[in-house]
Amino acid sequence: MAQHNAFYAQSGGVTAVINASACGVIQACHRHADRIGKVYAGHNGIIGALTEDLIDVSRESDETIQALRHTPGGAFGSCRYKLKDIETHRTQYERLIEVFKAHDIRYFFYNGGGDSADTCLKVSQLSERLGYPLTAIHVPKTVDNDLPITDNSPGFGSVAKYIATSTLEASLDIASMCATSTKVFVLEVMGRHAGWIAAAGALAGNGEGDPPHLVIFPEIAFDRARVMARVEEAVQAYGYCVIVVSEGAIYEDGTFLADSGNTDAFGHRQLGGVAPTLAGMVKQDLGYKYHWAVADYLQRAARHLASKTDVEQAYAVGEKAVELAIAGQNAMMPTIKRVSDAPYEWRIEAAPLVEVANREKLMPREFIREDGFGITAACRRYLSPLIQGEDYPPFDNGLPRVAKLVKHRVERKLPDFKI
Amino acid sequence: MAQHNAFYAQSGGVTAVINASACGVIQACHRHADRIGKVYAGHNGIIGALTEDLIDVSRESDETIQALRHTPGGAFGSCRYKLKDIETHRTQYERLIEVFKAHDIRYFFYNGGGDSADTCLKVSQLSERLGYPLTAIHVPKTVDNDLPITDNSPGFGSVAKYIATSTLEASLDIASMCATSTKVFVLEVMGRHAGWIAAAGALAGNGEGDPPHLVIFPEIAFDRARVMARVEEAVQAYGYCVIVVSEGAIYEDGTFLADSGNTDAFGHRQLGGVAPTLAGMVKQDLGYKYHWAVADYLQRAARHLASKTDVEQAYAVGEKAVELAIAGQNAMMPTIKRVSDAPYEWRIEAAPLVEVANREKLMPREFIREDGFGITAACRRYLSPLIQGEDYPPFDNGLPRVAKLVKHRVERKLPDFKI
Repeated sequence: MAQHNAFYAQSGGVTAVINASACGVIQACHRHADRIGKVYAGHNGIIGALTEDLIDVSRESDETIQALRHTPGGAFGSCRYKLKDIETHRTQYERLIEVFKAHDIRYFFYNGGGDSADTCLKVSQLSERLGYPLTAIHVPKTVDNDLPITDNSPGFGSVAKYIATSTLEASLDIASMCATSTKVFVLEVMGRHAGWIAAAGALAGNGEGDPPHLVIFPEIAFDRARVMARVEEAVQAYGYCVIVVSEGAIYEDGTFLADSGNTDAFGHRQLGGVAPTLAGMVKQDLGYKYHWAVADYLQRAARHLASKTDVEQAYAVGEKAVELAIAGQNAMMPTIKRVSDAPYEWRIEAAPLVEVANREKLMPREFIREDGFGITAACRRYLSPLIQGEDYPPFDNGLPRVAKLVKHRVERKLPDFKI
Repeated sequence: MAQHNAFYAQSGGVTAVINASACGVIQACHRHADRIGKVYAGHNGIIGALTEDLIDVSRESDETIQALRHTPGGAFGSCRYKLKDIETHRTQYERLIEVFKAHDIRYFFYNGGGDSADTCLKVSQLSERLGYPLTAIHVPKTVDNDLPITDNSPGFGSVAKYIATSTLEASLDIASMCATSTKVFVLEVMGRHAGWIAAAGALAGNGEGDPPHLVIFPEIAFDRARVMARVEEAVQAYGYCVIVVSEGAIYEDGTFLADSGNTDAFGHRQLGGVAPTLAGMVKQDLGYKYHWAVADYLQRAARHLASKTDVEQAYAVGEKAVELAIAGQNAMMPTIKRVSDAPYEWRIEAAPLVEVANREKLMPREFIREDGFGITAACRRYLSPLIQGEDYPPFDNGLPRVAKLVKHRVERKLPDFKI
């Protein structure tokens, strides 16, 4: 069969293992050299396609491509940019076709979350709607773990391992200090709408009194009096209280805690942190000395503590995307199918993009303890396998070694295009 | 020679490796069984001695003691409690002597930072001032690296490695997102008066344009206009800007950027929230989208990413403390002597406590770049060896394994004592 080129791009918030998926895509493309010629990566995601800003991946050494597997961030640049419908923004789609034609691109791999799945779905329709023969495959990725159908999302397992480990470690710190110092520690984690990452914090403990003593989910309306009563209970019983709170924690009326107009613990106007807001409430209502941390990008970039399971799955969905494309399966997404919990077994399957795009998978209520402040045994059975195994990057001179790409640009053939 | 018991206690903020020092002390005591009988650990530091709340370390298994080497936090409980002078608080010192007599304690090992060195010094004077034969040795520990004489402080190397790694990883994240999203990232790190930890963030990069683009030290007065100009420069030149800021960042007039108004038990101002403050300035002055992280306890508890060098040194100072005590060297502290930078060589020496207590080692001006926003080559030569080597803890079920002490309490022989 004829040989054509492939386009790969990263989209949305990056993860510790999105480059492992890139590695999977690229190495699988190389293994199908009879069908796939060059692999061009979009510089800054889909924007690279629109502006004909393409990185020639074949100019990178095999070692560099292999090093992507242990490099966090998005090596080719990502973007937050959502294509509108073909009807409302036809010029953009026509431009994509021009670029794809100019560079003989017939395979499109888009590595992202829910919004990106929507973009990929629209691109997949080019074939049918605008008559250009393109096979578009979405490669799943999101730390939020909120993609539907797939049992879990690559990127989540590593942030889950980082948050569970950090909660465990910080809890030991607090436990040692609580007699005369800090009594309450608040760790803010990501998850705007879904509490999966907060739930991972709960993996740190599994016995009576083990920290964290409270997990605050975006799925459960925040009730200050109930939360404070529970904090007080924990301090009385164990001498200290560890709270893992999701950035998306909301009041009954849907207002985010961080946007509630509260002043922080220092009396300053809140600048967008749930942790300081909650710590301020603790100080105000209970008078306890507190510490708080906001992990922010550290959690999703922490490749040094990646879950081995997650790295393997991220690579596998990248690899599978290429196999689907070679098989002519347009508008699909590789998914992770859990075969068993213990021992954990999984395999890669695939789902049509129409079933994936624009749907958010929240925590099921049966994964959240009845009191709303912790996880159930079912949730633990689900989460625990995802953080198994370590996959340390090599270190040079005390620091993780990361892929250094030359990012050789493909010669432009088309006029400029303004996005 | 006669055999007597030893007392060991942890003091002040704990670190990722203070338990490695505990491990060094305890194992060395066991090796000197002819001179040292039982090792009693103070529950919650010196408070454990005052309240006769002693943990019998000999009831812990050898495996548990060995596991201290890879367990963060303070396994026996720490405290923020500073003894006053013997003159002003004679009853406390008399109580210490009663407890030591009651349990035949003649060796006192106190594991802490600058404030704790002062406590240890006072206890060491018991021998001379109150006629009780005690040998008191201070075991150095502080993430702040601000102890004098010793080339570096155990605990610092690990937090330095964590902050350098986290800065590197988060910078890759930001670099991938900056085209359409976050342009400025602020990481707040510990260091109330000394910028050592902030300086460690600078190890993440070593070339033109490498992040972090700004390091904000407590040693250099914060000038908002100059800082914002440099942020703008970085965004223009590289597309994004990464800032590592010390919690102790101060204005020219000595006001902390984020002064909570609270003080801790040692009378120090409680700080926190510099990152959101600085991020708010960036938004206000330059309009850039930002993210910020506050590592807080995560940084000093991150045993999973400890520096091997640090772990070895933490163990070695614990071991040396016992040797000094056995040799009758009262009122001393083991110190780390750097023999050479590259290859890095070090050995343990010792210094009199009077030269250590209540002295803070700030960053020398020649370690801070002339513009005040980065480190010099000399600083890099100093810092780099301290983060060398990894020393991963064993993991069980996806999480670090930690020592689980039984903490068997020694039977009380004295009446209660109120502190």
